[in-house]
Amino acid sequence: MLTIQRLTTRSLQFHSELDRLLAFEGGQDAAIEHTVEDILRHVRRDGDAAVLEYTRRFDRLDAASMAQLELPLVRLHTALDNLPQAQRDALEAAAARVRAYHEHQVMQSWTYTEADGTVLGQQVTALDRVGLYVPGGKAAYPSSVLMNAIPAKVAGVEELIMVVPTPDGVQNELVLAAAAVAGVTRVFTIGGAQAVAALAYGTATIPQVDKIVGPGNAYVAAAKRRVFGTVGIDMVAGPSEILVICDGRTNPDWIAMDLFSQAEHDELAQSILLCPDAAYIDAVTASIRKLLADMPRREVIEASLSGRGILIEVRDLDEAIAIANHIAPEHLELSVDQPEVWAARIKHAGAIFMGRTTCEALGDYCAGPNHVLPTSRTARFSSPLGVYDFQKRTSLIQVSEQGARTLGKIAATLAYGEGLQAHARSAEYRITTD
Amino acid sequence: MLTIQRLTTRSLQFHSELDRLLAFEGGQDAAIEHTVEDILRHVRRDGDAAVLEYTRRFDRLDAASMAQLELPLVRLHTALDNLPQAQRDALEAAAARVRAYHEHQVMQSWTYTEADGTVLGQQVTALDRVGLYVPGGKAAYPSSVLMNAIPAKVAGVEELIMVVPTPDGVQNELVLAAAAVAGVTRVFTIGGAQAVAALAYGTATIPQVDKIVGPGNAYVAAAKRRVFGTVGIDMVAGPSEILVICDGRTNPDWIAMDLFSQAEHDELAQSILLCPDAAYIDAVTASIRKLLADMPRREVIEASLSGRGILIEVRDLDEAIAIANHIAPEHLELSVDQPEVWAARIKHAGAIFMGRTTCEALGDYCAGPNHVLPTSRTARFSSPLGVYDFQKRTSLIQVSEQGARTLGKIAATLAYGEGLQAHARSAEYRITTD
Repeated sequence: MLTIQRLTTRSLQFHSELDRLLAFEGGQDAAIEHTVEDILRHVRRDGDAAVLEYTRRFDRLDAASMAQLELPLVRLHTALDNLPQAQRDALEAAAARVRAYHEHQVMQSWTYTEADGTVLGQQVTALDRVGLYVPGGKAAYPSSVLMNAIPAKVAGVEELIMVVPTPDGVQNELVLAAAAVAGVTRVFTIGGAQAVAALAYGTATIPQVDKIVGPGNAYVAAAKRRVFGTVGIDMVAGPSEILVICDGRTNPDWIAMDLFSQAEHDELAQSILLCPDAAYIDAVTASIRKLLADMPRREVIEASLSGRGILIEVRDLDEAIAIANHIAPEHLELSVDQPEVWAARIKHAGAIFMGRTTCEALGDYCAGPNHVLPTSRTARFSSPLGVYDFQKRTSLIQVSEQGARTLGKIAATLAYGEGLQAHARSAEYRITTD
Repeated sequence: MLTIQRLTTRSLQFHSELDRLLAFEGGQDAAIEHTVEDILRHVRRDGDAAVLEYTRRFDRLDAASMAQLELPLVRLHTALDNLPQAQRDALEAAAARVRAYHEHQVMQSWTYTEADGTVLGQQVTALDRVGLYVPGGKAAYPSSVLMNAIPAKVAGVEELIMVVPTPDGVQNELVLAAAAVAGVTRVFTIGGAQAVAALAYGTATIPQVDKIVGPGNAYVAAAKRRVFGTVGIDMVAGPSEILVICDGRTNPDWIAMDLFSQAEHDELAQSILLCPDAAYIDAVTASIRKLLADMPRREVIEASLSGRGILIEVRDLDEAIAIANHIAPEHLELSVDQPEVWAARIKHAGAIFMGRTTCEALGDYCAGPNHVLPTSRTARFSSPLGVYDFQKRTSLIQVSEQGARTLGKIAATLAYGEGLQAHARSAEYRITTD
């Protein structure tokens, strides 16, 4: 029997109850940490041999050499060519839209020249080589391949090395087809902490990358945390969340299905509705009960909504916006009139889906923006995955002779104040002419 | 006796020798990790009481309440008013230049409208509240206060909470003056892992922040790593490095002093010279010996240059550029003619100091760009601290009725392919009219 928590902001306990229901402890499992530490050390020391050994043990793939674990690019194109036409069209249309959106994010180098001729600026460059982790098994999503790979390609990353475990040799055709569409450079059928280690440290066969992106299980997440610093990593994601703000005038079936679309991901996914109309919340509850029976992923949805779902009656939409800014949701639907007015008041969210026709699922696949978004309140300080995650900046400083005199005096004064005399002398040398 | 490693790229062992000399293992100390874990747990559970207890134990400050550990803003302004005029002028001139440069980094929101009326874009917002860690004691640098605080202020961060330990109650006037110039909101005289915990979790007195920036010792670094995810953090910095590429026609005393200015920071700091002219390397070596005797921080410089300094004879400047891109240095000086031509070929560096008059020390204090830069080869994938580190992006998606029909079909096809039927149904609802 499905039961969803229902709260009202009129309750004195509202804020403490809300924070209790929002709380999610990622935590770190000591056994996983220990295993991952071993795997990283082993791969760093023994390279390909260690990767082969772990792949044999964990994925039951008995390869004699790493070459056997690399998929030729023609294999990806075969997967694409063999897709049903409708799927291929959808995949290519989604990729084109994601590419077009991300092209708006490309950062450019800039400089400016001061009156004395001093030039200052930043030079923007792409990362050389990126590793893309793609999970095997049930959570292998072609859309995730597009969302992680396309921003890197748009940034100008030259080599995109994909790793995807294929336990017992089972390969996912849709994932391989998506890799073809996204323009991945090389693919190795390895996974787990051993794949993360191979990408971070490099082996004889697998080139060392500069950054590793893409979702994975707890072992992959622990490995990414540990290699951070040797390489860059993307955010370690928590369970997915949706917050729907509705004025009570959207078809309640639509809202129920939007909550389902989050809940069906995972039993820990969180779906929240904020609405000022108690009768409408009743109507959505009725829609949930009515629609649930037909859902193939009914059990996951029921567990997620019962364990982590919340229906909240608010005083008005102003209060809903304030609560949304506190929650800093990954996905925020504004199912209201004039959504642009309300969106401008949102300070913290991964993505805002504006208006009754804009369901979150469109953003997961093909609207254009990235579906890799900050979870667990991290939208307070972080951003969707984007082209900017595959570019970096270098400061440019070219001081004129006059500039060296002016700046040299300021720098020397401050350097002596900090007790760093070589800094001061280095600046003072440039004050006098050579 | 000072001895600096000298290499030539003509040696067959060059690359392996270079990589050996570059290697730096940050490592994590198990005892520190354990202590920090305890402190974080204690502060999270007991709040102010725990912070007071640790401050008593580690800083020998016996405060009865947190209120006694907050410095009123008037205290900062008194510190500024009491500075010698030349120091105050230098501090304010540096702050004005850093502010002017960073204003070029402010990101703006953007949207575009597609033919069917669908609007896509990103909304840029500032973080609400940032914590600024400032070390106490000898490594307390006012320039570091400016470099960390000003980008946050330019980004529009409303509250900037500074923590600075004051062991035995000793306060650093230059640091407090810099905090006044930078516009810090509140200052607490606490430090160590307990200060990081207080900022990350919040206490009755200290507000929870969204991100913590600023340098610290091994305990602070370990604490920042552990609270990452609850709050954002900046990069955990390794030892500072400089790489000088010189054509052999700059005054060798200048280059020697530039190498000193890096070496005087820390015995682990690394100074490297690349030059195609063996006689010039001899001349720089002679300058090093001649100038070292006069340096107040002679012992640190000698230890750093002996332990980690490298003088490398290269075949030509082309080879020097290739080596620089391999090293991905924090600071890169191009002491050559037409430095802009060579700078354009640099793919990985924190900051490039272009031309003979542009010494690295100018960038540390007052040129304008940030002095918080990626170390230990992390310039391969990360950037100088900037305004963009205090802003974040939210995706905006407003799909028109026509757009919902077009996109709904694509999304539904892909969602069914991934076995996510609620996603598909949610998109399909919007294809039919309400």
